[in-house]
Amino acid sequence: MKAICKTQPGVGLAVRDVPEPSLGRREVLVRVTRSSICGTDLHIYQWDAWASSRLKPPLIIGHEFCGFVVAVGDEVEHVQVGEFVAAESHIVCGYCKPCQLGQAHVCLNTRILGVDVDGGFAPYAAIPAVNACKTDPALPPEVATVQEPLGNAVHTVAATDVRGATVLITGCGAIGLFSIAVAKALGAARVIATEVRPYRAELAMRMGADAVLNPTTDDVLGYVRRTTDGLGVDVALEMSGHPASIELITQAIRPGGEVSLLGLFSQQVALDLNALIFKGVEIHAIIGRRLFQTWEVMQNLLHSGRLDVRPAITHVLPWHEYEHAFELMASGQSGKIVLNWEV
Amino acid sequence: MKAICKTQPGVGLAVRDVPEPSLGRREVLVRVTRSSICGTDLHIYQWDAWASSRLKPPLIIGHEFCGFVVAVGDEVEHVQVGEFVAAESHIVCGYCKPCQLGQAHVCLNTRILGVDVDGGFAPYAAIPAVNACKTDPALPPEVATVQEPLGNAVHTVAATDVRGATVLITGCGAIGLFSIAVAKALGAARVIATEVRPYRAELAMRMGADAVLNPTTDDVLGYVRRTTDGLGVDVALEMSGHPASIELITQAIRPGGEVSLLGLFSQQVALDLNALIFKGVEIHAIIGRRLFQTWEVMQNLLHSGRLDVRPAITHVLPWHEYEHAFELMASGQSGKIVLNWEV
Amino acid sequence: MKAICKTQPGVGLAVRDVPEPSLGRREVLVRVTRSSICGTDLHIYQWDAWASSRLKPPLIIGHEFCGFVVAVGDEVEHVQVGEFVAAESHIVCGYCKPCQLGQAHVCLNTRILGVDVDGGFAPYAAIPAVNACKTDPALPPEVATVQEPLGNAVHTVAATDVRGATVLITGCGAIGLFSIAVAKALGAARVIATEVRPYRAELAMRMGADAVLNPTTDDVLGYVRRTTDGLGVDVALEMSGHPASIELITQAIRPGGEVSLLGLFSQQVALDLNALIFKGVEIHAIIGRRLFQTWEVMQNLLHSGRLDVRPAITHVLPWHEYEHAFELMASGQSGKIVLNWEV
Amino acid sequence: MKAICKTQPGVGLAVRDVPEPSLGRREVLVRVTRSSICGTDLHIYQWDAWASSRLKPPLIIGHEFCGFVVAVGDEVEHVQVGEFVAAESHIVCGYCKPCQLGQAHVCLNTRILGVDVDGGFAPYAAIPAVNACKTDPALPPEVATVQEPLGNAVHTVAATDVRGATVLITGCGAIGLFSIAVAKALGAARVIATEVRPYRAELAMRMGADAVLNPTTDDVLGYVRRTTDGLGVDVALEMSGHPASIELITQAIRPGGEVSLLGLFSQQVALDLNALIFKGVEIHAIIGRRLFQTWEVMQNLLHSGRLDVRPAITHVLPWHEYEHAFELMASGQSGKIVLNWEV
Repeated sequence: MKAICKTQPGVGLAVRDVPEPSLGRREVLVRVTRSSICGTDLHIYQWDAWASSRLKPPLIIGHEFCGFVVAVGDEVEHVQVGEFVAAESHIVCGYCKPCQLGQAHVCLNTRILGVDVDGGFAPYAAIPAVNACKTDPALPPEVATVQEPLGNAVHTVAATDVRGATVLITGCGAIGLFSIAVAKALGAARVIATEVRPYRAELAMRMGADAVLNPTTDDVLGYVRRTTDGLGVDVALEMSGHPASIELITQAIRPGGEVSLLGLFSQQVALDLNALIFKGVEIHAIIGRRLFQTWEVMQNLLHSGRLDVRPAITHVLPWHEYEHAFELMASGQSGKIVLNWEV
Repeated sequence: MKAICKTQPGVGLAVRDVPEPSLGRREVLVRVTRSSICGTDLHIYQWDAWASSRLKPPLIIGHEFCGFVVAVGDEVEHVQVGEFVAAESHIVCGYCKPCQLGQAHVCLNTRILGVDVDGGFAPYAAIPAVNACKTDPALPPEVATVQEPLGNAVHTVAATDVRGATVLITGCGAIGLFSIAVAKALGAARVIATEVRPYRAELAMRMGADAVLNPTTDDVLGYVRRTTDGLGVDVALEMSGHPASIELITQAIRPGGEVSLLGLFSQQVALDLNALIFKGVEIHAIIGRRLFQTWEVMQNLLHSGRLDVRPAITHVLPWHEYEHAFELMASGQSGKIVLNWEV
Repeated sequence: MKAICKTQPGVGLAVRDVPEPSLGRREVLVRVTRSSICGTDLHIYQWDAWASSRLKPPLIIGHEFCGFVVAVGDEVEHVQVGEFVAAESHIVCGYCKPCQLGQAHVCLNTRILGVDVDGGFAPYAAIPAVNACKTDPALPPEVATVQEPLGNAVHTVAATDVRGATVLITGCGAIGLFSIAVAKALGAARVIATEVRPYRAELAMRMGADAVLNPTTDDVLGYVRRTTDGLGVDVALEMSGHPASIELITQAIRPGGEVSLLGLFSQQVALDLNALIFKGVEIHAIIGRRLFQTWEVMQNLLHSGRLDVRPAITHVLPWHEYEHAFELMASGQSGKIVLNWEV
Repeated sequence: MKAICKTQPGVGLAVRDVPEPSLGRREVLVRVTRSSICGTDLHIYQWDAWASSRLKPPLIIGHEFCGFVVAVGDEVEHVQVGEFVAAESHIVCGYCKPCQLGQAHVCLNTRILGVDVDGGFAPYAAIPAVNACKTDPALPPEVATVQEPLGNAVHTVAATDVRGATVLITGCGAIGLFSIAVAKALGAARVIATEVRPYRAELAMRMGADAVLNPTTDDVLGYVRRTTDGLGVDVALEMSGHPASIELITQAIRPGGEVSLLGLFSQQVALDLNALIFKGVEIHAIIGRRLFQTWEVMQNLLHSGRLDVRPAITHVLPWHEYEHAFELMASGQSGKIVLNWEV
């Protein structure tokens, strides 16, 4: 089969003919119908420091995908051939201390699809049955494939209490955009987003933000204060990986508020810890998704129609146009980009 | 001024000329614009066992009301004349152990407006400043007055985790009806309600229930099982005070689910505790509202438009038609009934 | 090998020669050094209604045991031959909704060692590797074997907030006795226990209870009120399965308090739900142990010496004296009874 | 009366004759028996940047004290003359949003005794009745006076889940020392402390630390890893205000662990946020004490004898030796220093 691979160290990706994956006893074979591109995939494409230290080419990349189960291993009991599934990207061990404590999202032995083992930018993928999350076949496939990053958004929002809250979201990449709709679905009264790119600011409004400000030109802190009786926001979600956002949040969060940190930073960040201490703030450092509480909440919200993330999915391209997809991704003139494998 | 009073022990209420209330140093004087009728008021009207043991006539009744502040006591700092407020009905001491622990809703020294001290079925009411909850003047007055019982609904729902949940609500009196909309606003994926009266079942649909079943004629448990893969509901809210509802919930709740109990029962209830134990269920016995976390969440949801309870408010009558209002209330052919004092 | 078996429906148990267990790919073979007897084992012995509906003889019984791993299956990665382990008795599926939600203690497909599949009243037992909980080899073996029921105690206590609390424990069977020490280890300021049998009341004092009262002769409610400024206890743990205990707890719990229910009842129980509702009480229906958070907390407490349950372990008998052990158990003149397989 | 005052801007304190305080309607007059010295008092003495920006001399300083109520205001209902009390130092408004949300510890209108209004380094102090926390008269007075800072320790520890946990405490000033005993009382399995001064390291051992390491000479991270199977500590409490401690904690905390930050920093701190994000850590920025949940837990633990902080109280001096006390405090050759006003 033809798959999108990291064939060797260095910039770029390539299509290669690879054998169809063999199936382990507790795995299922998925015929991939859609994949989607994550910022991590862009790092792999560009072969940055993280990618070069972590990946061992050759490798089929891609950790966001959905499709139909076409075969199941001998010991698989709960997944049937024909079922529609999306991949949870973290393969966890189940026996390390975090796993035992119900914190499998920080499993000590995590292997990530498309990073540590072959992934889903391919017509077929073999994944552990427990990672095959059954998905409502009525869900549009371009939504089904983005459940993995949408799960990050759900986890980030759900780590805080947004019920009736005013929520500040800094950064409107795909997960930031998703988070706007998630916060609203879980009871946020108001969402203020920040984003520097007009294209994504426009998407943020379509996702339901009550206001989208440009942190480089607008007085975000002034806006927050004017609209919160000077108090600050109840909840802030950092999704930009930009130090200025942390500084903004430090000032904009109200006493007793909550902050979730999802965006990764290119270096150490100087924090005014005293300001956070005097405010008695709770800070949640967020990685991945709760396995599998996050999936449960997310899928129920999607199925019920209470959560609609389609405005954030801006492009669906045939898989072989992946070079164009990565260019779009790098340009910032996109929300989520989906690759179609049924072409 | 003319007020609706319990003048003496026995059935019924009467309008009496009473002096305008005097104002304590930490009180505010409210010109009442709307009141609303609670089931408790009906018990007072009918002079049931609870009422006769608790009330000491003569008394101005009524604990749900809103209006404008027309005077403030010497020591009141944070409420101004002219502000629009709704009454929190529980006057708490602030120093008993529950108050000290942040559980003022079970204050040992609670006095209730319209039950233990004069209430708000009157043109003016003097209440502690801290019980005067500032309300968005843009909120329709018939909504502003029902915030007290709406707070019960918010507290009942918020005690559980409804994010992405299937929620069963047994009983669609006013608080049951409110809870449907509250559950949806806080992220419930689906709400199944039960109600015996067609009038209220219809209101339940208008409040956003996904299904409303008649527990005396429909196979509610069968419906729950069919629509939850046999598992049961994630959350159940008991709002009927009927033993059959508890039995239904015991069977319908899923393993690991949560139950909130709000409805009061006329006698002891036989429970299959083993069934609840084998399922590892959490049960929240609910009284009042969190002071004042519940108000904060509720008011933000109302202000944002994410919570709309108007379909449950079926009648607004001039205050002097209160006898008709109580008849309507007793008939069950009503949702929430509001009395207008600006006539 | 010779094992203690339920050979056929009816009262009693028998020693039978059975083959050594075969080992699954993800199982470990344990050479059992100690087992301990649970109330459930007594039900099986006596062949009560529950036992006759659930068990399918012939079966090796026993679900509390510890020992050394003597062989591991092909796919077992994290357990080595020679390690000392205790059995978690619940074999769970990992893919049902409760399992996915981190509530594996109410797994829909639970199979229990010694109840649904062969157990540990035998020299050898094959159990899933994930059920083999590594245990500090320095722990006395009679303590190691009781970790399963001790886990029930830890789960019951840990479901509540006992920090600085006055705790009422109704019933001092083994788990009640364990709970006294657990509550103290987790920060309870005071533990009041109730028990009808003098033998167990004495054990309760040795486990650290501040007071042990006989509910049939002492005025427990009066004592609670006198020692809590009339307020009631912060936390109550029901461990007797006796309806009178529920009634006591309903009256003795303070407003805003928490109740855990572990004891099983022989029939439906009439509850004054209104009393619990007016007090705004939280009720936790408890089953099993959190897999495996409870084990983690328990083992750390045991290892650190902060939790010592030895006074509750009253008898260690050679395994072949099991008839005597069951008689002792039925007599109530015992705490936990351990069977020694190294004789 | 003679009181220890900040008479004017600049270094130092002075004893001044001041009038006895007048008593407000909701205040109580306390005859002070003991006071204790906080790091904040040292900042006031030394007149650092914070002190010079916040204090408005002349002022009686001191916010940690206990004593007997000798008079109560007209509206005080729940405190009687003769009762033994300790002061909660934060006077809160009760109506700002944090207060309404049960977060009075971050009240927007907080006034602090001895900082914003006259304090308790004096024979008499008038404080709001609600700030007079009733104290077991059997408690040694030198313990009674330190309840305020002990409350910080209880709040810091209680913000995390220490049940069965390995806890790292960086910095053994008074609150760090207290936290060792608090962590143990609330179920910590093991406490590892860091401290540079041998005097305080010795006190840390007496408070129950399992190990005390010098972060400038010992390999703390290596020790943590060796003693936690390489995993890291479950909980870390930062009590030093030193950037190196944050760096240590970032590396020493386990995936899924919790961090509380209490120590204040002299400047911004560079953090490796990615490391915390990859570990999915929860961070609690801590200020003050929960009003008054923390007092409840603390007093119950003290009363029961489960918490003993006497080893951390190293000096009790006559009040007029306050200059010596501040020298001792600055030297680091002390734990908590208490001033005796009954001399």
